[in-house]
Amino acid sequence: MLITPGRLLAKIDSPDDLRHLNQTDLPQVCAELRQFIVDNVSVYGGHFGASLGVVELTVALHYVFNTPDDQLVWDVGHQAYGHKILTGRRDTFHTNRFYKGLSGFPKRKESPYDSFGVGHSSTSISAALGMAVASQLQNHPKRHHIAVIGDGAMTAGLAFEGMNHAGATEADLLIVLNDNCMSIDPNVGALREYLTDITTSPTYNKMKDEVWNLLGKMSNFGKSAQDIVSKIETGLKASLLHQSNLFESLNLRYFGPIDGHDIDHLVSVMNDLKDIPGPKLLHCLTVKGKGYGPAEKDQTKWHAPGLFDKVTGEIKKKVYDKPQPPKYQDVFGNTLVELAEANEKIVGVTPAMPSGSSMNIMMKAIPDRAFDVGIAEQHAVTFSAGMATQGQVVFCNIYSTFMQRAYDQVIHDVCIQELPVIFCLDRAGFAGADGPTHHGAYDLSFMRCIPNMIVASPMNEQELRNLMFTAQSDTIQQGKQAFTIRYPRGEGVMPNWRTPLEAIEVGKGRKIRDGKGVAILTIGPIGNYVTNACELLETELIHPAHYDMRFVKPLDEAMLHEIFQRYDKVVTVEDGCVMGGFGSAVIEFMTDHGYVARVKRLGIPDAVIEHGEQIDLHRECGFDPKGIADAVRELTYAERIITA
Amino acid sequence: MLITPGRLLAKIDSPDDLRHLNQTDLPQVCAELRQFIVDNVSVYGGHFGASLGVVELTVALHYVFNTPDDQLVWDVGHQAYGHKILTGRRDTFHTNRFYKGLSGFPKRKESPYDSFGVGHSSTSISAALGMAVASQLQNHPKRHHIAVIGDGAMTAGLAFEGMNHAGATEADLLIVLNDNCMSIDPNVGALREYLTDITTSPTYNKMKDEVWNLLGKMSNFGKSAQDIVSKIETGLKASLLHQSNLFESLNLRYFGPIDGHDIDHLVSVMNDLKDIPGPKLLHCLTVKGKGYGPAEKDQTKWHAPGLFDKVTGEIKKKVYDKPQPPKYQDVFGNTLVELAEANEKIVGVTPAMPSGSSMNIMMKAIPDRAFDVGIAEQHAVTFSAGMATQGQVVFCNIYSTFMQRAYDQVIHDVCIQELPVIFCLDRAGFAGADGPTHHGAYDLSFMRCIPNMIVASPMNEQELRNLMFTAQSDTIQQGKQAFTIRYPRGEGVMPNWRTPLEAIEVGKGRKIRDGKGVAILTIGPIGNYVTNACELLETELIHPAHYDMRFVKPLDEAMLHEIFQRYDKVVTVEDGCVMGGFGSAVIEFMTDHGYVARVKRLGIPDAVIEHGEQIDLHRECGFDPKGIADAVRELTYAERIITA
Repeated sequence: MLITPGRLLAKIDSPDDLRHLNQTDLPQVCAELRQFIVDNVSVYGGHFGASLGVVELTVALHYVFNTPDDQLVWDVGHQAYGHKILTGRRDTFHTNRFYKGLSGFPKRKESPYDSFGVGHSSTSISAALGMAVASQLQNHPKRHHIAVIGDGAMTAGLAFEGMNHAGATEADLLIVLNDNCMSIDPNVGALREYLTDITTSPTYNKMKDEVWNLLGKMSNFGKSAQDIVSKIETGLKASLLHQSNLFESLNLRYFGPIDGHDIDHLVSVMNDLKDIPGPKLLHCLTVKGKGYGPAEKDQTKWHAPGLFDKVTGEIKKKVYDKPQPPKYQDVFGNTLVELAEANEKIVGVTPAMPSGSSMNIMMKAIPDRAFDVGIAEQHAVTFSAGMATQGQVVFCNIYSTFMQRAYDQVIHDVCIQELPVIFCLDRAGFAGADGPTHHGAYDLSFMRCIPNMIVASPMNEQELRNLMFTAQSDTIQQGKQAFTIRYPRGEGVMPNWRTPLEAIEVGKGRKIRDGKGVAILTIGPIGNYVTNACELLETELIHPAHYDMRFVKPLDEAMLHEIFQRYDKVVTVEDGCVMGGFGSAVIEFMTDHGYVARVKRLGIPDAVIEHGEQIDLHRECGFDPKGIADAVRELTYAERIITA
Repeated sequence: MLITPGRLLAKIDSPDDLRHLNQTDLPQVCAELRQFIVDNVSVYGGHFGASLGVVELTVALHYVFNTPDDQLVWDVGHQAYGHKILTGRRDTFHTNRFYKGLSGFPKRKESPYDSFGVGHSSTSISAALGMAVASQLQNHPKRHHIAVIGDGAMTAGLAFEGMNHAGATEADLLIVLNDNCMSIDPNVGALREYLTDITTSPTYNKMKDEVWNLLGKMSNFGKSAQDIVSKIETGLKASLLHQSNLFESLNLRYFGPIDGHDIDHLVSVMNDLKDIPGPKLLHCLTVKGKGYGPAEKDQTKWHAPGLFDKVTGEIKKKVYDKPQPPKYQDVFGNTLVELAEANEKIVGVTPAMPSGSSMNIMMKAIPDRAFDVGIAEQHAVTFSAGMATQGQVVFCNIYSTFMQRAYDQVIHDVCIQELPVIFCLDRAGFAGADGPTHHGAYDLSFMRCIPNMIVASPMNEQELRNLMFTAQSDTIQQGKQAFTIRYPRGEGVMPNWRTPLEAIEVGKGRKIRDGKGVAILTIGPIGNYVTNACELLETELIHPAHYDMRFVKPLDEAMLHEIFQRYDKVVTVEDGCVMGGFGSAVIEFMTDHGYVARVKRLGIPDAVIEHGEQIDLHRECGFDPKGIADAVRELTYAERIITA
């Protein structure tokens, strides 16, 4: 079912078409754009509230600025649906986030209007500044560069680093602060409180005017007042004009706050700003989910609600006739509370992902010991390290892909110091529809090379619970090693998952099935594919063994000795990059111990893999059940190895 | 030669001893502490200016606060010499930075007074906040937590993330801003300008008082003025008390700026601050190198001057009777200018390491195209990515160890987007005396697993020049791959290094010498050890072949086929972690292609290796010339491999 655009929107094939409209038509364009997003997302899914909140901003920016020559960078990018629809992708928008379809985020390959690919937050200021500085070098003095960034994204250090540099340049950079008080969950931190203060107190500019008026009037009051005025005028200037605003402290000219849904005002302000040189910030107040009642009311839920009935606002849920397995994140969230109730040293840390990681369960149950630190992965890890020095048992939950942003802190603040912080890496492996920016592809490689680090992945819910139980035990906590537990996005395999908690010996794998000829070694839930793979092979009388290694580090060396003594053909399977990952660890062991075997390593190849359902991507990379069976078959009939 | 401490210092074996002195004795303690640092560093080397700059701060902090129960975190930590000397390490201080001696940075294992290990900048706020929050949970309401952080370190995003969280808590956290206008090089950015404004304009607190006085007086002037006053009072309060300072914007109570060399005032202010609850910031103005004339004058040079004559201030330089090889960093710096003069698209980016990376050569020669972005590795990379989208050819130079802090940006902003940014990783491999926080141990593992990434390392100066020449060529720049060139700290091997620039075929290694039985495969300058190793083996009639692979990614597959067809014994050598690194890449190739060989991988083991001269650490890890020879010998006489 293709969605029919409104009358005006139907004619907008590019921002040029938009710019040929009268300004009086823009409210209608906004209404149609909003409706088109509602119509699409309700049927095809995707991110929702963020794009509704920037409809007017999107229209105003493309109306006022000469995109794509003027360069527009959307921070994070899940709010860029309107941008995509206005920039030539209206008629393909129903493919958004589907396998082989449009990306859910701006992407350079997809359109010249997507000046910078995004997905992770807080990159836009740095990227747009780079473009602006390049424009100066290349002598394009009239080219504008705009970064649209949310108040949530502003809390990340990268945004601050970008502002600190921008404020020391003359670059033509407009930062549009899209202030809706939200990340995916409500935004937190001192900056958030500050933005609220600006918004709720008499506006800064108005106050500034009044002070100047007052100073003018006071100079009529006679000598003594005049003296004082003169004396403090310099001070006030410095204070009010230069220092009285956080952004102006960083030498960004500050404008606002203004209503981010008043299209006329937005157009007029942006037109004015075009003539103001140098770095500047426009503070726009918006409402996430604007224009769609239910989404305005419960903004976290409607961040990415899934399919819904656009008339009733009812979110469609699949109905099952028997219990379904839980999401791994919920197993994490519930088990954490279970453990924390028994062990008062336990604390939880999440960087702005309470609902995404299910840390919100602990935040509700034991609020004193669960911390949402905002979009601030680096701080999340070093803050965890600080708590660990005091004997707290810290579960720091960060998506695998976002852990890339705290890599130095893991090495420098945790592992070098032998602090037993527990890292739970959600969304490890393919993230699915969010695509390459969000795939947790590299963690096994980048975590296992760090000393004082245990790296594990559970094959199912029970194993996840037991790994968490193990990690918080006194034995591990006194062992001076960090403990990484990675698990994927989505559902597990055990409808009855509330199993009794049992300790696991660190570095101990599990033999799942005996076999002949070929051994399959897996790590994590991808191991569940092996059962299906074996079924495919049964008719061919091929019976591989299966070992769930559980730990990438330390490896179960006893088990590996057994495997390489019994099998000269081995398949390794991981939902992670093959380069340097789990399979690589296995062949390091093999080579170090002088074993010889044909080894086929399955996993994510050395390429950027696009978005799609997880199973589609597993298939594309050859480690779905059929791919695993193919690898076993290939090895079974393979020639012997080559000796020099 | 042991350094004799002054009369008072000689009696201070711990801060308790310090706290038993009269406050009137403290200036003398400061003088003796300063002298002791000068005496030591002039003879034994080390960091210099930073510690001199915080002598009074150090004495005041330990005098006022009850360390180690009150917890003191030094950011970066190269300024903590005074702290070490006052906390029981006076008589071992001459071993500072020597192999098996004291660490040049605070280190938890070394002393209970080192509450948090440091080395990289900007971690102190997050770490101390973690401790403060833990103290709240553990009901230690009277325990104080102090982070001492420089203005340079404040520019890094992590510091901002920490403040944003701290400002939203009630934690007992005192941030001491040690404002000396410097990183190693002069500090840059908008924050720096802001701090200067605070310092040079009438001080904030004074101005605030005057405004309040004025408001009081104005209320005598009659109705109309009173009305206005009343009307704007709320606004002014919000503005002046809450918003008028960057730090107060983040809900940190701000105090200062005060003279960081006035010991009496420091003690009295800190005593007052002990009674003020919640997060707060004390802004102290200090002079890097304070009290030692030459160091005050040229602060960059005296950051870590090497040995010097403390009387004349003359820095001791070794005298040679023939030309010596240059430092790799200088080859980088000079070659960059050479390339940039011929290719106007080239730009250079450094995060606060102009002198450390020798980017200062380009900053002087072509200032418009060389950017010091401050301590901001994440921004450095994303800013580079932004410029690369506009066709600039970007050389982004970051120490290997600091690249850990920009890992996500390399993946997300550069490689996924197929942007050909050139990363030059200085200090790759063992950093030497700076120790484990600074070793560039992991880069081969964490960079090679990223798609669209070339990873190379030159064996000598000529190769470095040629790799740089290659990376900026049109062929590579149009090839949509990032290009990493890693090289170590210190000198190369070619006194005559200004060789003609020649392109290198990407993924092409070099055969250095033919051999029999065993092949040695090396990456980077560590390959120069092989000549010595071969000399050691000659008398035993062992003649290994040597291949300089040049590229870890893509590997020279043709050469590897040749090697594994001719040799069944292979030694790989890298100045990097063996887990997932270069040797691992070689055995991945071997296994994928069904070759069999005994492979011994030499490199940094899976452990935290402490500080020392590079050669000492190479020896410790078994990849100095003797270690390489031993490995070859062991393989030569090794049994055949085991087949299942």
